[in-house]
Amino acid sequence: MGKVICVGLGPGDPELMSVRADRLVRAARHVAYFCKEGRQGHARQIVDGIISPDAVEYSMEYPVTTEIPLDDPRYNEMMAAFYADWSAKIATVARDTDIVVLCEGDPFFYGSFMHLHARLQGKVEIEIVPGITGMSGCWTSTGQPITWGDDVLTVVMATLPEAELSRRIGDTDALVVMKIGRNLPKLRRALEKSGKLQQAWLIERGTMPGQKVQRLVDAGESVPYFSIAVVHGQGRRP
Amino acid sequence: MGKVICVGLGPGDPELMSVRADRLVRAARHVAYFCKEGRQGHARQIVDGIISPDAVEYSMEYPVTTEIPLDDPRYNEMMAAFYADWSAKIATVARDTDIVVLCEGDPFFYGSFMHLHARLQGKVEIEIVPGITGMSGCWTSTGQPITWGDDVLTVVMATLPEAELSRRIGDTDALVVMKIGRNLPKLRRALEKSGKLQQAWLIERGTMPGQKVQRLVDAGESVPYFSIAVVHGQGRRP
Repeated sequence: MGKVICVGLGPGDPELMSVRADRLVRAARHVAYFCKEGRQGHARQIVDGIISPDAVEYSMEYPVTTEIPLDDPRYNEMMAAFYADWSAKIATVARDTDIVVLCEGDPFFYGSFMHLHARLQGKVEIEIVPGITGMSGCWTSTGQPITWGDDVLTVVMATLPEAELSRRIGDTDALVVMKIGRNLPKLRRALEKSGKLQQAWLIERGTMPGQKVQRLVDAGESVPYFSIAVVHGQGRRP
Repeated sequence: MGKVICVGLGPGDPELMSVRADRLVRAARHVAYFCKEGRQGHARQIVDGIISPDAVEYSMEYPVTTEIPLDDPRYNEMMAAFYADWSAKIATVARDTDIVVLCEGDPFFYGSFMHLHARLQGKVEIEIVPGITGMSGCWTSTGQPITWGDDVLTVVMATLPEAELSRRIGDTDALVVMKIGRNLPKLRRALEKSGKLQQAWLIERGTMPGQKVQRLVDAGESVPYFSIAVVHGQGRRP
């Protein structure tokens, strides 16, 4: 009997993988990872110099990413079938031997693996290795602490409705915004309405080659989906 | 000329240090860390099997922890003098050679190093290595994802006033509460008022020997200051 080991790879720099993740990926004989159709995928790229050339690779290609709106029932149907299919395949491998599933950042923090986890739980043994979140990588790259003293930190997705986004931004000390991409104009308006546009930073490709850290007001109109915006807390400090 | 390298050690399990942190700590010739008076301190314990026996160690003993209330002006004075003193000492070492400062979790996320960072910035070269946060270690240990889909995550300190704590707990999908310790009875009331007491988990010593994961309602009256409570988000999932 094997087990399913989901390994958090951290924010992107391979040296920011944990010692355990590094060890598990190097030793893995079966490795699965999510990616867009026809792409290698970000998780697989992170382990490029580490993964064994003998490993059997399972490239789990999303059937859809942003082509269909999230509220279209077809989106849900296609994704549910995709996760059911891959959890069955992974469970089959795990009947005989260990299989490592790669996951960017921290697996239990907005990660795709959770959808496999929900379907595998109770059927196979599962181990989760936490990772450094993408947001930690991004706020570190700004060179300033994200939270001090009793600061409240709010993490929101830019996919939220504009009024809700604005309310959340206005009602926190420190802020992290994820899933930005085409939601950037909406995020900009929400930040402006809350009086925080000038304090906001935008980080693209945090901790990776081509990392870009800039004030959000200076960003162009188009940013990658995996960009992260932060507003630093200003709490108590002796 | 050396530099100051602050290394995030992660949630406690030494294998959850990043590959870079592990490499830097092993190579370090000067190592500083925070601790309570007369104790070795948690950060130093994490690197016990890793740090070189030849390293010069700088044990930065807090002049006060919970003996004086935070709002007493003497607290602020004593802590400010302490940080000023140690930032001067560290800058002196860094004039000649590298010095590694150990930090539990992620340095820019509610870490004590930030108070040295504020005083050293612009005077010496500083490098920050992000780490897995204590909260990631804790939610992983519950075996359930903390956030799904568009969930809002709020991180609050149990030191906040009860009404504010209760409002924050009621107004989020996923929740992390830190700095619990003697604030547990207040946190319990705030969770109950928000109708989330039954969904709350309490994690002590997450990822470390003696880890304890239990429903918060089942916890005793006394828990360590570094315990973390979580309420998992229940957002969109295909």
